[in-house]
Amino acid sequence: MKKSIGAQPATFPNPVFIVGTYGKDGAPDVATFAWGGTAASDPPALSVSVRPSRLTYENLLLKKAFTVSLPSAQYAAEADYFGIVSGRDADKFAKTGLTPVRAEFVDAPYVEEFPVNIECVVTQSLELGSHVLFVGEIKDIKVDEALAAAGANPWADGKVITFGANVNQYLAPGEEAAKAFSAGLKYR
Amino acid sequence: MKKSIGAQPATFPNPVFIVGTYGKDGAPDVATFAWGGTAASDPPALSVSVRPSRLTYENLLLKKAFTVSLPSAQYAAEADYFGIVSGRDADKFAKTGLTPVRAEFVDAPYVEEFPVNIECVVTQSLELGSHVLFVGEIKDIKVDEALAAAGANPWADGKVITFGANVNQYLAPGEEAAKAFSAGLKYR
Repeated sequence: MKKSIGAQPATFPNPVFIVGTYGKDGAPDVATFAWGGTAASDPPALSVSVRPSRLTYENLLLKKAFTVSLPSAQYAAEADYFGIVSGRDADKFAKTGLTPVRAEFVDAPYVEEFPVNIECVVTQSLELGSHVLFVGEIKDIKVDEALAAAGANPWADGKVITFGANVNQYLAPGEEAAKAFSAGLKYR
Repeated sequence: MKKSIGAQPATFPNPVFIVGTYGKDGAPDVATFAWGGTAASDPPALSVSVRPSRLTYENLLLKKAFTVSLPSAQYAAEADYFGIVSGRDADKFAKTGLTPVRAEFVDAPYVEEFPVNIECVVTQSLELGSHVLFVGEIKDIKVDEALAAAGANPWADGKVITFGANVNQYLAPGEEAAKAFSAGLKYR
């Protein structure tokens, strides 16, 4: 039997997208967003939804470029802080001691210490009430050198965290439950 | 040091969205999509990106309604099968023995055996090259009765699986790495 828990913004899993942008004064900012995901394969794209009140929103309109850095479990506190405080009130890089690096292909900064950095340009947006969904075309992905080796899994080996929205938890990557494009062949 | 792995549709984590639709003949279909996520809070919405070649695409245009059922680890094979085969070639419910249930608020079927079912109406769409991103306004979420109890966590307790796109793995939910809106307070 099923029971209704109402209409709420609850899907699973949610990413921990640390969005890096430059402001009008050229200062690097980072903020945390969990409403988003991969959006298309060709050209490769992701989506991230941002409230218009956020500094990130202002910077996205200005620069049409951003990065998404994916934090490892050891940086969960920094990732959380990036979502608690506005870049209007604090220099989040200075506060945490993390390092902004200018992206190679887009006009935006990424977080050097985080294992995965995705460089995006804004190509489209969609107004959705509380949030505006931005589509970022992925221009490059950079990973820690060790995670780029053959056989490496940047996400699991990099201990990239995810977000359980309705329980306010950051989660480590889970164990393999099944092989994709394989486990289901028995029904074919 | 960072190393480029090129521009690719690789973010983490990815959901395992089992999208349920009715076809023009009224037959229930389900198919598996990993490009998507939560999209807005108010009204609550999610996004899912679909290739125009898919039967799901045809059904979404026709009915403007769908469900997203989230599979537990014990149904990983069924979830995988739903992504391997087209509903044009097979009755996926009949093949797997799973049960289509007409959603309460939208004109679409969900998978009774999966622990979480989200009922959506299509409100907007965006053409993104290989895929069309559909926005679904969430009209209701249903969960297994035991998962609706106070203190329950439908995603972890329901063992909802996620997808590691670049490694073709389904993953169980991970362990807690940190508390959100809490771990970062030390930097404030």
